[in-house]
Amino acid sequence: MTKSYHTVQKKESLQDKATRLLLEFTKDIITFTTQEESVLRETIKVKSFPKGTLAIEEGEFSNIECYFVLKGCMRKFYLIDGEEKTTGFYTEGQPVNITTSQQKNMPCGFYLECLEETLVMLGDAEGEANFFAQFPRFESICRKQSEEMVGELEQAMAQYIISSPEQRYLSLLKNRPELLARVPQYHLASYVGVKPESLSRIRKRILQRRNS
Amino acid sequence: MTKSYHTVQKKESLQDKATRLLLEFTKDIITFTTQEESVLRETIKVKSFPKGTLAIEEGEFSNIECYFVLKGCMRKFYLIDGEEKTTGFYTEGQPVNITTSQQKNMPCGFYLECLEETLVMLGDAEGEANFFAQFPRFESICRKQSEEMVGELEQAMAQYIISSPEQRYLSLLKNRPELLARVPQYHLASYVGVKPESLSRIRKRILQRRNS
Repeated sequence: MTKSYHTVQKKESLQDKATRLLLEFTKDIITFTTQEESVLRETIKVKSFPKGTLAIEEGEFSNIECYFVLKGCMRKFYLIDGEEKTTGFYTEGQPVNITTSQQKNMPCGFYLECLEETLVMLGDAEGEANFFAQFPRFESICRKQSEEMVGELEQAMAQYIISSPEQRYLSLLKNRPELLARVPQYHLASYVGVKPESLSRIRKRILQRRNS
Repeated sequence: MTKSYHTVQKKESLQDKATRLLLEFTKDIITFTTQEESVLRETIKVKSFPKGTLAIEEGEFSNIECYFVLKGCMRKFYLIDGEEKTTGFYTEGQPVNITTSQQKNMPCGFYLECLEETLVMLGDAEGEANFFAQFPRFESICRKQSEEMVGELEQAMAQYIISSPEQRYLSLLKNRPELLARVPQYHLASYVGVKPESLSRIRKRILQRRNS
């Protein structure tokens, strides 16, 4: 009979987990030095939200500039005449903008719901400024990333405008297929701009076309 | 009788004009040093388009990352089943994204029409890289500007999604009133997502409400 040894494994802290995930998401665009990684680990601000909770509510004042989703799935929605209108889904590796500098001291206009247990990194002006002051090379990297994102967002908006609800759904199927398993159908319907019944018809039509 | 003297005024070059306008647009966020201004003047790439011409056509391959509008008005549109679908208007001080790095070597998917004689600054990767290498402080300024723009674009997209055509028109009236005098009604109708006849009805309704 072999004797079993129990190795005591220290539970990974939230800071460590967040740092590990962030390095993973950014590995294609940057390799952190040991010092950069260590400062990141010490200063990173993280928050974990249980499934079903609201990370942001309409009317709330926030000094958070953005959340960077490390794990989980968030849904952004507006309450229009008592009806929830979904405008976006955010999963691993995606930033969610909360407050632009022009909106400072203004109440937030939307809700952010966690469709799953969600871990985010918090971006605020002060923390960001400190990190850039210590490691100026990140200025250039983040500038390029932001410029890229401006282009992508502009294209996404144009695509939304020129597309029918069916085309928007087909685009989700093609570009973000994982969402379909993670997000309830009625939220997807709201996002593409139709009632849940209409989305059912759209899905049936797509299926029929594929099978014929 | 006094003798009249003619002072010979050198016509302002396109480079000079573009530099002057760019400094004017950016004066709230940055003051250029004499050296920065001089390098800008020497290296700035500008292009002038007559009214009615296309600055970009669908299917075109472009290494331009963005145009920055210094004077004039551009309209971005897609050709969908033979119908022009307008997705944006760009005027003085606004950037128009053309190609993200992911879209390099891919044909452009849209058209960019000059609704007025238009002067733009061209942004390309090489020119940008050279300028940042010489003047690294611009990295931080442009990073902040791009981050800000990401937030604004995301908000603009959400607002578009949650708004009715009438609300979109009211938002143009409020936020970009100058467009209404510069852009033909049928382009505005396309942008808010209705036929020109429907926009006429919307405008009548708004006017009646204001007068009652």
